[in-house]
Amino acid sequence: MTDRVTAAVLVIGDEILSGRTQDTNTNFIAKYLTTYGVDLAEVRVVPDVKEEIIAALNALRKKYDYVITTGGIGPTHDDITADCVAEAFGVKLYEHPEIIEMMQSRWQGELNAARRRMARVPEGGSLVKNGVQGPPGFQIENVFVLAGVPAVMRSMMDDVVPRLRTGAVVISRTVRVEGAGEGVIAEPLAALAKAHPDLSIGSYPFFGPTGYGSNLVVRGRDADLVERTVEDLMEALGDIGAKSIARVDA
Amino acid sequence: MTDRVTAAVLVIGDEILSGRTQDTNTNFIAKYLTTYGVDLAEVRVVPDVKEEIIAALNALRKKYDYVITTGGIGPTHDDITADCVAEAFGVKLYEHPEIIEMMQSRWQGELNAARRRMARVPEGGSLVKNGVQGPPGFQIENVFVLAGVPAVMRSMMDDVVPRLRTGAVVISRTVRVEGAGEGVIAEPLAALAKAHPDLSIGSYPFFGPTGYGSNLVVRGRDADLVERTVEDLMEALGDIGAKSIARVDA
Repeated sequence: MTDRVTAAVLVIGDEILSGRTQDTNTNFIAKYLTTYGVDLAEVRVVPDVKEEIIAALNALRKKYDYVITTGGIGPTHDDITADCVAEAFGVKLYEHPEIIEMMQSRWQGELNAARRRMARVPEGGSLVKNGVQGPPGFQIENVFVLAGVPAVMRSMMDDVVPRLRTGAVVISRTVRVEGAGEGVIAEPLAALAKAHPDLSIGSYPFFGPTGYGSNLVVRGRDADLVERTVEDLMEALGDIGAKSIARVDA
Repeated sequence: MTDRVTAAVLVIGDEILSGRTQDTNTNFIAKYLTTYGVDLAEVRVVPDVKEEIIAALNALRKKYDYVITTGGIGPTHDDITADCVAEAFGVKLYEHPEIIEMMQSRWQGELNAARRRMARVPEGGSLVKNGVQGPPGFQIENVFVLAGVPAVMRSMMDDVVPRLRTGAVVISRTVRVEGAGEGVIAEPLAALAKAHPDLSIGSYPFFGPTGYGSNLVVRGRDADLVERTVEDLMEALGDIGAKSIARVDA
């Protein structure tokens, strides 16, 4: 785990906390980072409150290699992410000429104060391309500031990932056990986990109208070790009386 | 906002951070709490790592009225939530006789070590009923420890909410603007937000194949004020050239 690269996601938005919106951005970012060997190590969701955003951002950017924020970069009064990021870094915001130009060509003369808000970038920041609609996001040091609208956030991630130092990709393999509960799976699973401290071995139970069981997930950066451990796991589970034990990876 | 009651959700689970699982528990809890006038003020997702769980739990339980954790209370080696909660509170875990009895009647003699793990509750804790499957969760002081499996977590919330001090319920009203962007909505919206510091007024833009616009959400605990503000908002938006401006609440 020596070359582990870590990231945190900071979701900024009252709408997630009120339950109005189901956050799907985190899951998209988690999968995207996993593909590139970057470990999403923490997620925080905070309201549109300046002190909360700044405190969370400062905690996360010191602790992890990267921080990706989503939300709060539009033109309305509740969009305060850029202000908070600038304050966290102790720098000023300025109107980025490239964004102003982009907006002038789109809206002709109609660059009102609200739209100009979206052209503000912290000093020392660079732009993150928006391939869909509207102004770009930005990067300052190890922090990437993205939109909250999922389609826009997703397109911005395409411009974030090439900038990241990526690590060894984590290989993940899943064994699905049906008709046996965690109570009987736990012992052989724990023995394997103990024998392989470099692997992450988890159990994710399911219950439903069609039956019960658990998905056992073996994760690690050494593909051979993951493979051998999956085989050992299936053998160890041979006599727990499960209805079926099967690999479910594509 | 004097009787504001706050809560935080602490999601414990590698499977959320790896992107394997889309967290839906937070959204369910957010809506449930909102209905009862409890403000979900922060969410954190942390991995199955003892130090991280304890640090997050201690930060959140001191800052908010309540903390609800999900995940990590099963019988497998990666289920370490109970251990972490006990350590955070500086107390010991003990096997709760009621859970042992419950499990003995279900599994007869087969109470192995893994299953007994699920009977462990911190000293001073009380049980949170599981109406679906398996052992209960528990409460210790202002912390509620629930399962991660959504169906189980949801049933446990029914036993959590009656124990909460609830606040004045937040009324939320939405105005959907089509065919006008936030750039022209921002100014009248900001004026209303400034005039009503006790309300939370947000703008949530959408873009799609069928058009673009924004959902404007007015939230507050004074129903009359929310209603008047929505009316003022619709009037103020009259001349921005939108295709349609309509209330979309049920």
